[in-house]
Amino acid sequence: MDEGSRMWMVTCTAPVNIAVIKYWGKRDEELILPINSSLSVTLHQDQLKSTTTVAASRDFKEDRIWLNGKEENINHPRLQTCLREIYALAKLHGLEGELSEIARQGSGSACRSMYGGFVQWMMGVKEDGSDSIAQQIEPETHWSELRVLILVVSAEQKPIGSTAGMQTSVKTSPLLKYRTEIVPERMKEMIDAIKRQDFETFGQLTMKDSNQFHATCLDTFPPIIYLNDISKRIINLVHRYNSHFGETRVAYTFDAGPNAVIYIREQHVDEFVEVVKHYFPPEENGEHSHRARQLVMISSIDQSRRWTYFLCWSHICTMLMRSQVEVPSDPEEIHKSITLHAISFRFLKGLPVNSVSVSEHLKSSIQMDSIKSGIQYIINTRVGPGPQLIQDANLHLLGEDGFPKQ
Amino acid sequence: MDEGSRMWMVTCTAPVNIAVIKYWGKRDEELILPINSSLSVTLHQDQLKSTTTVAASRDFKEDRIWLNGKEENINHPRLQTCLREIYALAKLHGLEGELSEIARQGSGSACRSMYGGFVQWMMGVKEDGSDSIAQQIEPETHWSELRVLILVVSAEQKPIGSTAGMQTSVKTSPLLKYRTEIVPERMKEMIDAIKRQDFETFGQLTMKDSNQFHATCLDTFPPIIYLNDISKRIINLVHRYNSHFGETRVAYTFDAGPNAVIYIREQHVDEFVEVVKHYFPPEENGEHSHRARQLVMISSIDQSRRWTYFLCWSHICTMLMRSQVEVPSDPEEIHKSITLHAISFRFLKGLPVNSVSVSEHLKSSIQMDSIKSGIQYIINTRVGPGPQLIQDANLHLLGEDGFPKQ
Repeated sequence: MDEGSRMWMVTCTAPVNIAVIKYWGKRDEELILPINSSLSVTLHQDQLKSTTTVAASRDFKEDRIWLNGKEENINHPRLQTCLREIYALAKLHGLEGELSEIARQGSGSACRSMYGGFVQWMMGVKEDGSDSIAQQIEPETHWSELRVLILVVSAEQKPIGSTAGMQTSVKTSPLLKYRTEIVPERMKEMIDAIKRQDFETFGQLTMKDSNQFHATCLDTFPPIIYLNDISKRIINLVHRYNSHFGETRVAYTFDAGPNAVIYIREQHVDEFVEVVKHYFPPEENGEHSHRARQLVMISSIDQSRRWTYFLCWSHICTMLMRSQVEVPSDPEEIHKSITLHAISFRFLKGLPVNSVSVSEHLKSSIQMDSIKSGIQYIINTRVGPGPQLIQDANLHLLGEDGFPKQ
Repeated sequence: MDEGSRMWMVTCTAPVNIAVIKYWGKRDEELILPINSSLSVTLHQDQLKSTTTVAASRDFKEDRIWLNGKEENINHPRLQTCLREIYALAKLHGLEGELSEIARQGSGSACRSMYGGFVQWMMGVKEDGSDSIAQQIEPETHWSELRVLILVVSAEQKPIGSTAGMQTSVKTSPLLKYRTEIVPERMKEMIDAIKRQDFETFGQLTMKDSNQFHATCLDTFPPIIYLNDISKRIINLVHRYNSHFGETRVAYTFDAGPNAVIYIREQHVDEFVEVVKHYFPPEENGEHSHRARQLVMISSIDQSRRWTYFLCWSHICTMLMRSQVEVPSDPEEIHKSITLHAISFRFLKGLPVNSVSVSEHLKSSIQMDSIKSGIQYIINTRVGPGPQLIQDANLHLLGEDGFPKQ
């Protein structure tokens, strides 16, 4: 290989984050500056992650990008902003500086994935957005008993995307303006609850903030309704479960779709999962693995290129790549990426869950009809670290020719 | 019949009202004073009404009340408040004075049923509530082309009642406090739109206010969710229909349940009903008439009595009686009362609707899947007058013995 064809290649993985104080609405569409601060928990990459490989070579004729095996337009404005910023900062190698500021300009909530553990995105006050950055509140080791269950709900139709949705909300929802007065106090209480590992307060605030976010969506005109009848049943189930025990053992939060994310402590996971299985008995067929095979097909590739990006397995946030595309807060997308990993269908994925029995007393407190196949599957995961650099060259998503590996 | 056994009897009917600016939340639970003013349209009694017969006799040993054929507890505090006020005001005969103030103390929104046409309930500022009364804005003759369609949706389960619901909202929803700052301006705009017969503004405000009411319900903790997946589909359908024509031809509003009430002008009724039938094709079986028969059964009656009240066909607001019981804003109850009238099942009830064809162009704009039996039936009605005194003695619900007629 001569000097001219030498290629530099790097691969990294990045986590998903799930907000407990929600981001909804920008005060600056260009710089992606939010109307309120937000706070999220970074999920562990053992269960959910995105992988990005970047290759650079003098032989490449142009910049190109593949996302989930499909080539995407490199001229997307958000992608261009990120690339420009990265070049300016790091001249290809040795990225340094305030990365969360760059990530934010690709996709707002992506900036919270720059750190592990518990992360706030401070809204900032400066016009240039330089103080609208992410900050770790506590690392992933801080609250070791915390677990996260993702309840994947069958969605009827693709809901409105979050970028368009929040634009309409800012324009039309009178209540959203008032929400900005409510959030600062909530942020303080939430940070304090996390530091004290106070699940009661953490859980209540999480649920209230999720509900308030969806309330402002409903106050938008035309209204945006992400929750469906299954989401509603999950909400009821959680409140009845907590009410039975007289404490907050479980807390739900919903993003821009019907899937529920449940925060819970380790000691209650087995029982709560059993309760979910009781009221949402799983469907059993091979449909999911079939769907998985369809998604791993890679689109055909052509010749000339200078830069090559390839994202596979997921399009959910990576250090560089999450910034390029539509905010993947739509859990249907999480679903798709996960399906890829699951060649054979299982109802429970992720960390192991033990089978236990549910008391009749608890069932009679909950008093709900069970509904078949309302929940497709559950992922059991926990708090995790920030983006990781992958050392093993075998894990690059691009081959030595700079093209996606088959 | 000797002097002592002489009986006085009177029967009246009262209308349903459907708010376009919603009432949700009391500032005084005893006097039933609202946290904001509200505005409603009184529906015509040809399609929906309640009937109340009151009988008085020296022979009666105690006060008794029957509601939909079932004897109810006369000692209910709200009922007692109303009876006390009525005795004080009118000494049994010749009711005069500010009746809406009495009705309000039984059930807040009932006070708006004291007048026909377009009625506001002014929240008032006085501590004793004497200025928290209903006022007619325009009579029922004012906007003759206006029509009201009630889309009765199959409800899965009985939702939380409005009295308990609004108490929780006042206690826990931060957004509800802000709503009280938004409503005064909306009231002005709405009154103005009604006076000018400006359907565009009237419709938009109606939808926005319905959505905001449900947003504050969702911001309540635990959240209150009255809309279900069918309600959501109706909302989508309305927005797509309007968007196709580039104007607001149809406006939805939802109370404390999943049923939709649609405001529309006469010239668009035929087409819109056809569209609804297309996307929610009716179910065809005899289930409904069967259910009706079960509901008309009258509970057994015992002997001694002084006052006898009997409400039949409906428990929806009557001049005296609506005040006694739980606010019947739950449309499931409207459904029940209507089912009673319908011995044979028809999808379209009320004013006649002509069958028309829906253009493919419109269908392709709406682009929704159709869903079988999501809507049980439609009532087509219009704006109507206030409470009516019934002259025909045959229409009394009580017999000469003071007991419910069989």
